[in-house]
Amino acid sequence: MNKFSPLLQQLIDALRILPGVGPKSAQRIALQLLERNRTGAMQLAKALAVAMEKVGHCQQCRTFCETDLCAICSDPRRSDSQSLCIVASSSDQFAIEQTGQFKGRYFVLQGQLSPLDGIGPAELGLDLLQKQLGTGSVQEVILATNPTVEGDATAYYIAEQCKKYQVNVSRIAHGVPVGGDLEYVDGTTLSHAFSGRKPI
Amino acid sequence: MNKFSPLLQQLIDALRILPGVGPKSAQRIALQLLERNRTGAMQLAKALAVAMEKVGHCQQCRTFCETDLCAICSDPRRSDSQSLCIVASSSDQFAIEQTGQFKGRYFVLQGQLSPLDGIGPAELGLDLLQKQLGTGSVQEVILATNPTVEGDATAYYIAEQCKKYQVNVSRIAHGVPVGGDLEYVDGTTLSHAFSGRKPI
Repeated sequence: MNKFSPLLQQLIDALRILPGVGPKSAQRIALQLLERNRTGAMQLAKALAVAMEKVGHCQQCRTFCETDLCAICSDPRRSDSQSLCIVASSSDQFAIEQTGQFKGRYFVLQGQLSPLDGIGPAELGLDLLQKQLGTGSVQEVILATNPTVEGDATAYYIAEQCKKYQVNVSRIAHGVPVGGDLEYVDGTTLSHAFSGRKPI
Repeated sequence: MNKFSPLLQQLIDALRILPGVGPKSAQRIALQLLERNRTGAMQLAKALAVAMEKVGHCQQCRTFCETDLCAICSDPRRSDSQSLCIVASSSDQFAIEQTGQFKGRYFVLQGQLSPLDGIGPAELGLDLLQKQLGTGSVQEVILATNPTVEGDATAYYIAEQCKKYQVNVSRIAHGVPVGGDLEYVDGTTLSHAFSGRKPI
């Protein structure tokens, strides 16, 4: 016996697609589900199949949703907002929503500019963004891409494009995280924090 | 928006049944599958559903398999063997099979005695084991349960039962692992290694 029974081995192989799951973990997960939680695993199978089949992108903001417009884009209190926050992923959008701070609309790039990986403006839906800017309904664009090389490049690229449409463009602040310890903050963040200092 | 779209949120909740997956990881896995690997996720959904529905236990050795008898129990070169190795789980059986050392049959307990968790002799299929010992086809029993309190208790319980049937009972050796460093081996293991010393 070099392998488990065919169906069990198929399950173990299929589990390898999960991020961070190697051969040993896949085996452990498969056996644990079979031993202890067959009902839960059946539910997971259904949820996976339905989500992969039905969940697409919002036609306006490109976040993941199974309807034409997502909950935010179809909410009249928010869809009329003139602020548009641009984020790299649905999880970034979710993190911002959790703060309750921002009450405008979003545009989800579903990635960041990365020419080496073949991700250009078309893959990020920037044509759709331009159309929305062209209608004049957006007065303010807030760039909330990640503070990484790709995130910076994406932010500058979009900022350049926004110039044509006379909208206010800003980027979220970089600095020392609240509750963080200055001693353990890296140099680049610290110099961002200095250059972005504000009068009290 | 406190949540993702209903189907996506259902997927995130369903992923929580996987061992070691919390809310954040579940979210990351769901979004990553939607973004990058819908085909793989569909395959995983199918493999999960099929395995949970079809995979049962071998009627002879209780390991996981979808047929009445597993590959080992239905292999004539092994099913006639008079050696029976008793292990706690299918993954332990798999680990022993990987060594290629043992050519006999197995009996998989699918657990270890643990009265506090409601796991007694019946849950481990010890009645089935007794029947097999009663037929006289087993000459040697090798106890390969884990070297833990529960594993020890299970091994001693089964060894007591075997006494009635005049079979040779042995337990796998405990000692210093090969390639290990004496300095870092715990005291109990080291004393096991001393008491189990062999003449060269």
